[in-house]
Amino acid sequence: MAAPHPARSPADDTPEAAKLWAMIRGIDVAMMTTLDGDQLRSRPMWCLQDRFDGRLYFFTRRSAHKVEEVERDSHVGLSFARPDKQDYVSVSGRGRVLIDPQLIREMWREPMRTWFPKGLDDPDLALLAVEVEAAEYWDSPSSAMVHLYGYAKAALTGQPPHPGENRKLDFDRA
Amino acid sequence: MAAPHPARSPADDTPEAAKLWAMIRGIDVAMMTTLDGDQLRSRPMWCLQDRFDGRLYFFTRRSAHKVEEVERDSHVGLSFARPDKQDYVSVSGRGRVLIDPQLIREMWREPMRTWFPKGLDDPDLALLAVEVEAAEYWDSPSSAMVHLYGYAKAALTGQPPHPGENRKLDFDRA
Repeated sequence: MAAPHPARSPADDTPEAAKLWAMIRGIDVAMMTTLDGDQLRSRPMWCLQDRFDGRLYFFTRRSAHKVEEVERDSHVGLSFARPDKQDYVSVSGRGRVLIDPQLIREMWREPMRTWFPKGLDDPDLALLAVEVEAAEYWDSPSSAMVHLYGYAKAALTGQPPHPGENRKLDFDRA
Repeated sequence: MAAPHPARSPADDTPEAAKLWAMIRGIDVAMMTTLDGDQLRSRPMWCLQDRFDGRLYFFTRRSAHKVEEVERDSHVGLSFARPDKQDYVSVSGRGRVLIDPQLIREMWREPMRTWFPKGLDDPDLALLAVEVEAAEYWDSPSSAMVHLYGYAKAALTGQPPHPGENRKLDFDRA
């Protein structure tokens, strides 16, 4: 959990959700997979937000090819990998483009200037928000996978996920 | 390029292909994304082969859920990420399960025993082969993306990719 901000969502209160968020914060760069026609393509995207409310936000250009892909098919996969620590996270969700100046200002971090030299003045600047529908993580080569379901629902409704939706499963990893 | 084995494929002869393969060999663990119904899901998979012939091989159980997914829809995305070096690779391809004892023996590496304790005696052991159709890589945050197309075709036909298929593109990364 990022220290300076309180968690917004009750979903953050489960140990699995806290662990998931800590792993994402420790990696920062997601490979975002979208459907380019039938083909699955991914590209690195920086996730710089301080807290998790059921969505993950990424800066993009409105004119980027991946925006077209997400507008055609909003299913998005995010994978966070840190091989030196054997930390791996899979997130499944739905992406949409947000042109929301207030949120863009809130989410902006100066390191993004590497990709967006004009910063907040860039009229092509937008956010790609991924509504998290499911997540899984692995934190060592021999660990069980941990499934997290009901994430976005919990964040949006203010209800914690149903206990049956927060499961640990073995042996679906190799 | 892995040292002890000669490259099999003329596609390996381009500097971009050699760079791609060196990056994959430096990361080893792919997040493999498949379609679980409409949802994009990924999981870590170890790529331990010494050379590249247009396919990437991963050990799996025949009974694994991802095998069902690939049999329903063979489109597979592989992302290799190494955040400490800012190395990122996206591979798009088609997956299929191979029950080929000779190839299984050839590809087997002892570290796989972590996931397959019975090793080569495990009747559930199989290979998931991904025929590479396209690949892209990024090797620093400010680098252009490098597209590699025509990879599998070149590997299979013995013809190098058409020059027009081996392109470098800028500004589709943020």
